[in-house]
Amino acid sequence: MTAKTMTGKLSPAFTDLREVLRGRTSGPVAVRGMVHALRDMGGVAFLTLRGPDAVLQCVLPHGLDLQGVTEECAVALTGLPRPEERAPGGVELSADSLTVLSRPAAPMPVAISKKKLDLNLDTELGLRPVVLRSLRERSVFRLQEALCRAFRDTLHGLGFTEIHTPKIVHAGAEGGSNIFRLDYFGRKAFLAQSPQFYKQMMVGAYERVFEVGPVFRAEKHSTPRHLNEYTGLDFEMGFIDSFYDVMEVETKFLQAAMELVRTEYTQDVERLDVDVPDVTSIPALRFDEAKRLAAEKYGRPIRDPYDLEPEEEVNIGRYAKEELGSDFVFVTHYPSKKRPFYAMDDPDDPRFTLSFDLLFRGMEVTTGGQRIHDYQQQVDKMLARDMHPEEFESYLMIHKHGMPPHGGLGIGLERLTARLCGLENIRETCLFPRDLSRLEP
Amino acid sequence: MTAKTMTGKLSPAFTDLREVLRGRTSGPVAVRGMVHALRDMGGVAFLTLRGPDAVLQCVLPHGLDLQGVTEECAVALTGLPRPEERAPGGVELSADSLTVLSRPAAPMPVAISKKKLDLNLDTELGLRPVVLRSLRERSVFRLQEALCRAFRDTLHGLGFTEIHTPKIVHAGAEGGSNIFRLDYFGRKAFLAQSPQFYKQMMVGAYERVFEVGPVFRAEKHSTPRHLNEYTGLDFEMGFIDSFYDVMEVETKFLQAAMELVRTEYTQDVERLDVDVPDVTSIPALRFDEAKRLAAEKYGRPIRDPYDLEPEEEVNIGRYAKEELGSDFVFVTHYPSKKRPFYAMDDPDDPRFTLSFDLLFRGMEVTTGGQRIHDYQQQVDKMLARDMHPEEFESYLMIHKHGMPPHGGLGIGLERLTARLCGLENIRETCLFPRDLSRLEP
Repeated sequence: MTAKTMTGKLSPAFTDLREVLRGRTSGPVAVRGMVHALRDMGGVAFLTLRGPDAVLQCVLPHGLDLQGVTEECAVALTGLPRPEERAPGGVELSADSLTVLSRPAAPMPVAISKKKLDLNLDTELGLRPVVLRSLRERSVFRLQEALCRAFRDTLHGLGFTEIHTPKIVHAGAEGGSNIFRLDYFGRKAFLAQSPQFYKQMMVGAYERVFEVGPVFRAEKHSTPRHLNEYTGLDFEMGFIDSFYDVMEVETKFLQAAMELVRTEYTQDVERLDVDVPDVTSIPALRFDEAKRLAAEKYGRPIRDPYDLEPEEEVNIGRYAKEELGSDFVFVTHYPSKKRPFYAMDDPDDPRFTLSFDLLFRGMEVTTGGQRIHDYQQQVDKMLARDMHPEEFESYLMIHKHGMPPHGGLGIGLERLTARLCGLENIRETCLFPRDLSRLEP
Repeated sequence: MTAKTMTGKLSPAFTDLREVLRGRTSGPVAVRGMVHALRDMGGVAFLTLRGPDAVLQCVLPHGLDLQGVTEECAVALTGLPRPEERAPGGVELSADSLTVLSRPAAPMPVAISKKKLDLNLDTELGLRPVVLRSLRERSVFRLQEALCRAFRDTLHGLGFTEIHTPKIVHAGAEGGSNIFRLDYFGRKAFLAQSPQFYKQMMVGAYERVFEVGPVFRAEKHSTPRHLNEYTGLDFEMGFIDSFYDVMEVETKFLQAAMELVRTEYTQDVERLDVDVPDVTSIPALRFDEAKRLAAEKYGRPIRDPYDLEPEEEVNIGRYAKEELGSDFVFVTHYPSKKRPFYAMDDPDDPRFTLSFDLLFRGMEVTTGGQRIHDYQQQVDKMLARDMHPEEFESYLMIHKHGMPPHGGLGIGLERLTARLCGLENIRETCLFPRDLSRLEP
C-alpha cells in the first residue's frame, strides 16, 4: 500500500530572503527564487534573486558553472551571506552552488528590473501577466491587500459577519442602463451592480454584515476613474441612530488601514513613495455647503445645485486639504434625485437624502447612507419613481416582515488604492482591468 | 457652518446581549434587537430579543405599555438582568421600558422562532430573505464565515498574497461547455469558471497567492452537489517540490479551520450538532488503489478504471473512515484525460497526473495539483488536445517568460460547509443559490 499521510507540516528547507537580509542567519543558507536581474562581469556574475517580499543580491564567483542561467529562471542557491553596503538591503550572498529549477523559453519583453518601467499604459496592461514581476507594480497590489485586510479585520472586530451574495441576479439594484445581461438557461439575467439588496436582507439575520467581492457596471464611458468590473468593499449595519454611525465605522476602518499600511507594508510604501494620510478625524460637509464653499474659494460658479461634477469634487477635496487639513472629506445630504430608490430622504427636506460620499484627495471613493426600512415608505418611493414594486417582491419581503433602521456603504477598492498610491488611472490599481476595449488578459 | 467631524468612535449606548447573558453587567442595562418571539400571558409578556449572536428572554411586567409590539419589531429595552434557569442562557431581563424602533407591515410567513423549521427546501429557499432570521439557519453561514477566516489567516501566515482577478473573461480556463456567455459591448465574453489562469500568472509576481471569490459553472444538471454559482477558495504556490506540498498547505488550513470552529463558534456548533472532524493527519491514496480498495471492501465492481463515480467517492470516504479513521482522504494521481490541459502528467506514467482531490465524508470538496511550468511542454499538451495555443497567448506569456514549478487548488466553500454541517444539499449552504430553476431571490 502506498498510503501517505499529510500532517500540515511544510519542510523549511529554504531560508526566507527577508531573514537573510535582516542578518538573522548564521552560517551557510539555501535560498530560492526567480532570477530578477543578471550581470555577467566576465568571471564574476551578479544575480539578483527575487522572492515574494524581497530581492537578494548574489555573487557567483569565477569557476562556478552558470549552466546558461538567464533572467526569469527559477533557481536555488547555497552560499554565505555577508554585509555589503553596495547591495540592496546591505547584504549579499556569496554563492557556492547554483541549481536551475526551470528556464524561460524567451527573454522578457520589458526590462522589469528597472526601478520604473515607463511603459505606456496600454502596453503595460497588455503585458500585465509578466510586468507585475516588477517590484514597483507588485507593491501597488500589496497595499491593496492591506486595505482589504484592514476592512475585514475592523469589521470583524465590530461584530460584522462576512457574507457571499450572488453575482448572477434577476434584477439590478442600482437602476439605470449600466448593467450587463446574460442568458441564464434561456432566461434573462444580469450581473450584480452591487450586493445592495442582499446585504440589506442579511441585516435582518446578522444585524451587521460585510462582503468583499466583484461588482459589474456596464458604463459606456472610458475615463481614468471607471472600470467595468471592480472590487467592492461593502457593509451594512442595523440599529443605526443615523447615517453618521456608518461614517464612524468607515473612519475606524480607514484608521486601521493606514496604521496597517504604515506598520506592515513599509517596504511598499517606500518603493511607491506613498504619502500615507492622517485619518485621526475626517470632516463632514453638507452637499450644498461643500459646493458653495468650493465655488467661492476657487471662483468656479455652481452650474447645477443638484449635481456634483468631477471638477467640483476635486475642488472640494482641495478645500478640505487647505482649509480643514484633511485628505478625506465626507459630503453629506446628497440630492434625492441623484440617489437610488432605497435611500432614505431627509424628513427635514425631502429634496435631499440621509446619505454621503467620501472624497479622498478629490475623488469619490465611497457612497453610503441610511436606507428606508418601512415597507409602505419604500413602496411609495418606488411608485413615485414609476417603478413596479411587484418586480421586487423578494427584496421587499424584508421590509414587509420587519427591518431595523439601517444603513451601509460601498467602497471602490481600486479607487481607494489609486488615491492612496497617487496613481491617476485606476486601471493601474486593478490586476486585470475590464473596460470598453479591454477583455484580456 | 455645519461641519461635523468623524473620529471613528461608536457610542456604546447599548449593551451586547452576550455580555448580559454572561452576567458581566451590573445594575440596569439598555439592550436592543429584533423581537424574535412574543408570548402575551395576559398581564405579563415574554419577549425573546434577537441580537446578532444571541437571544435574550425579557419579561415585560403587567402595567408596562406594550404599544402593540409584535414579532419582528425592532425594539430597545431597559431593565435589570437576573438569573433565571428556565430562560435560554440562564439569564432573563426584567424590563422597565420598551421603545419600538420599527414595525413590520405583515407577520412572518413562517414561525422562525421554532428550533427546526421543517420547510421543504423549495419553500425555504424562496423565503430565504426572512428565513435566515432563524437561529439554526443563521448558524450555517456563521460556520461558513469561520472557514473563510481560517483560509485567509492560514495562508496569510504562510506568506500568501491576496488577489482579485476578473470574473468577466475572454476564454474559459476549465474547458467544456459549462460556461456562461455574455455580451460585452458587442464582443463575446464569458464568466470565469475559475481564477486558474490569473492565479498562475500571479505566482510569477508573488510566488504564493490566494483568492476567495465567485465561480460560475453553467452545468445543466440538477443535483444536491452542484451550484451554478459558488464561492471558490483558491490558492496557488510556487517552488513546490511536488503536489504533496499543496496538500500539506490544505491540511494546515483544515486544522486551523476546525480549531477556529471549535473555539470561536461553539454556539453554532452546538445549535447544528456539528461533528467537528479530527484533522491531525489526512491519509492519501492513489486513485487506482483507492478504487480497488473500496471496490473490494464494499463489493462494487469497477466499471471504468479512469473515472470516479459519486458512489465510488462515497465508498472511498467510507473506507477512509472505517479503515484509516479519517473523515478526510486525499485521492491522488487522477487520470490525465479527466484533468484540464494545465495539469502536469506523471513522468512515471503519463496516463495519470500529479494531481489530487480531497474527499470529505465521501464528497469531493477540493481539486488541486501541480501545473505545467515549461512553455514547450504546455504547448505540446494543448496541441495533443486539439487546442489552439494562439488563443491563449496572454496565459502562455508566463510559461514563455519563465515560471517556477508550481501548483495549487480550488475548494468549493459550499460543499465544505455542507459536509461539515452534515447537510445533504449544498443549496442549504449557499445564501441565495443559483441553479437551473432558481435565479431569485
